[in-house]
Amino acid sequence: MTMEVTVPGPVLERTLAAIGPADQEAMRLARAHQDNLTKPRGALGVLEEVAVRLAGAAGACPPPPPSPAALAIFAADHGVHAQGVSPWPQEVTTQMVANFLAGGAVANAFAAQVGASVTVVDIGVAADLPAAPGLVVRKVARGTADLSLGPAMTSAQAVAALEVGIAVAGELIAAGAACLITGDMGIANTTASAALICAFTGQDPAVATGRGTGVDDATLDRKIAIIRRGLQVNGITGTTGGGADPDGTERGADPADAAEALRRLAAVGGLEHAALAGFILGAAAARVPVILDGVIAGSAALAACALSPAAVEYCVAGHRSAEPGHALALDHLGLRALVDLELRLGEGTGALLAYPLVGAAVRVMHEVATFDSAGVTDKNTQTAAG
Amino acid sequence: MTMEVTVPGPVLERTLAAIGPADQEAMRLARAHQDNLTKPRGALGVLEEVAVRLAGAAGACPPPPPSPAALAIFAADHGVHAQGVSPWPQEVTTQMVANFLAGGAVANAFAAQVGASVTVVDIGVAADLPAAPGLVVRKVARGTADLSLGPAMTSAQAVAALEVGIAVAGELIAAGAACLITGDMGIANTTASAALICAFTGQDPAVATGRGTGVDDATLDRKIAIIRRGLQVNGITGTTGGGADPDGTERGADPADAAEALRRLAAVGGLEHAALAGFILGAAAARVPVILDGVIAGSAALAACALSPAAVEYCVAGHRSAEPGHALALDHLGLRALVDLELRLGEGTGALLAYPLVGAAVRVMHEVATFDSAGVTDKNTQTAAG
Repeated sequence: MTMEVTVPGPVLERTLAAIGPADQEAMRLARAHQDNLTKPRGALGVLEEVAVRLAGAAGACPPPPPSPAALAIFAADHGVHAQGVSPWPQEVTTQMVANFLAGGAVANAFAAQVGASVTVVDIGVAADLPAAPGLVVRKVARGTADLSLGPAMTSAQAVAALEVGIAVAGELIAAGAACLITGDMGIANTTASAALICAFTGQDPAVATGRGTGVDDATLDRKIAIIRRGLQVNGITGTTGGGADPDGTERGADPADAAEALRRLAAVGGLEHAALAGFILGAAAARVPVILDGVIAGSAALAACALSPAAVEYCVAGHRSAEPGHALALDHLGLRALVDLELRLGEGTGALLAYPLVGAAVRVMHEVATFDSAGVTDKNTQTAAG
Repeated sequence: MTMEVTVPGPVLERTLAAIGPADQEAMRLARAHQDNLTKPRGALGVLEEVAVRLAGAAGACPPPPPSPAALAIFAADHGVHAQGVSPWPQEVTTQMVANFLAGGAVANAFAAQVGASVTVVDIGVAADLPAAPGLVVRKVARGTADLSLGPAMTSAQAVAALEVGIAVAGELIAAGAACLITGDMGIANTTASAALICAFTGQDPAVATGRGTGVDDATLDRKIAIIRRGLQVNGITGTTGGGADPDGTERGADPADAAEALRRLAAVGGLEHAALAGFILGAAAARVPVILDGVIAGSAALAACALSPAAVEYCVAGHRSAEPGHALALDHLGLRALVDLELRLGEGTGALLAYPLVGAAVRVMHEVATFDSAGVTDKNTQTAAG
């Protein structure tokens, strides 16, 4: 086996080059501003850090309101579905795409609730989808190959999907989006997500794998075994140290190395994971915040941040999924989720729920009075009160 | 000492009589409907139970959208402030009321973010407040007495404040509110809250007392000692078993008894706690859901639910405060908070952040397609997929 592409595609390369670090001065100003507002210092808890993060992303204090927001749902199928890792038939991916386009899914209801637009991207659904308003067809393949038998994608496919994600991010931002929200649909994609999490964090499949949309004990055991086999057959043996190809070729196996990160993403990821990684990179390159949904987005973010570590500065973890691998991914990324309600649906639903919280965190920076302006006594600048 | 009022006031009595249990049939229908929607069963986690709860409250499936929502901020001062339990001067209560009315507080920013109206009620601020649009003056007293020296309120004051809360709930609902949101302002009110939590859960002040808006170790120790003294001096010795008055009179001391609940609320609560308890009871009597903010609302809800246990069925716990007593209160009430972001501000801020989540939970019941209507295969009704 050889890698088809050892150098990323030109769009990916330009995007990676465009991603800069968060603006430390804007973050310092944001922290100082928070401390002058008419509330006890630190009283907004985690939301204060969200506002600081968005200031760093935008390079401005206060950061611009994250409105309007755009959800992109990347849909794809998975060859590993044939291994019986999901109780749902593969056609449900196609059926749910139709449901999104008809406005009948939970993601549509949540998007309406919080005021986000919905775009559905066919990045790799196994069936042909009829054209419809709101559907963007950028199919890279009709599903991935079976990750338990070899690489799920060729490197060229992974790069193509990454570049679609970058393009979709760019198009939504050009159309006015000030905040991107990740969404996904793909029966069996929690299997690929758990494999990615193992590939990028070094965790064992037994701890990173969950029940997805609801599998029984026997299916969970099979899922873990399939992921373990997929990592082995693809020569993924840890986050550091050497990995060997099935053909015995030694290769550098540090996933922090861009080529190795790309290889791992292609080996066990899904087309929607690659597209989501590109979507995250595209947001970061444009200095626009991106709210991550659950375990699928979290695993894609691991790949994105292996390709560009600074990309994490533009990410907000929307929610914490019930999938055990998601907590591992968030820990690895150093992110704390805003919403933790035992959701396990995907589609972007958890990230959509977090969006008004992000908006509230930024609104505070624009609208709340300071102690001076409101004539409120600051306990920190007066002599001690009884 | 004798209780001035052993029978509640007429408005309180009528309100308590009007509170019925949740509608079990509507809840059953709501659970069944959730299971037919195009999502894996249970995939919306805690939000599915929120929708079921609102169906039970309204007696309808689907429950009506909880929109528009109205925040009421009850402001009052506390005699116990003289004991040095807060680093903030008492005037900050008055200053923050002016800040709310000018739209400059965090509660205003969050209310604007989520689309809730803001009403400020002077239920017991120590100073006279100038008339202003949005300010409702229903002052029962110029602050409470010092709970560490005797009852903070007379029973008549507590009943009056409860009835103001009931009236405000009724007025907001009459004006169209389909969801009430609790807010509070009162320097030193985490001290009264912790005392109420001890009085209604039997917990010790050492575990129920927190740092409020930010006190140092010495002040925290003093706060705990003050609360302990307040419970002793007011003859509150546990949630069950006998309690003795300072004058030695034995009395029935089961706080599940309405007269004893009222006595405890008056003894160590604040005027805003009593008003919030009435606000909760007023919502429950009208079968309108009420989103509880943090530790102040949680402690008031303990009093409300001691007066009418069914009232809890109309409550949604908006957020989990950083105050340790709040978790004890929520456990006692059997409620799980929707937002857990280490907020410790009060004003209604945590409940406001939860409001779009509640709206999203209900919207799902109205707008999401069923498996049948969307033509999506249900794994539970097909033969097993691989």
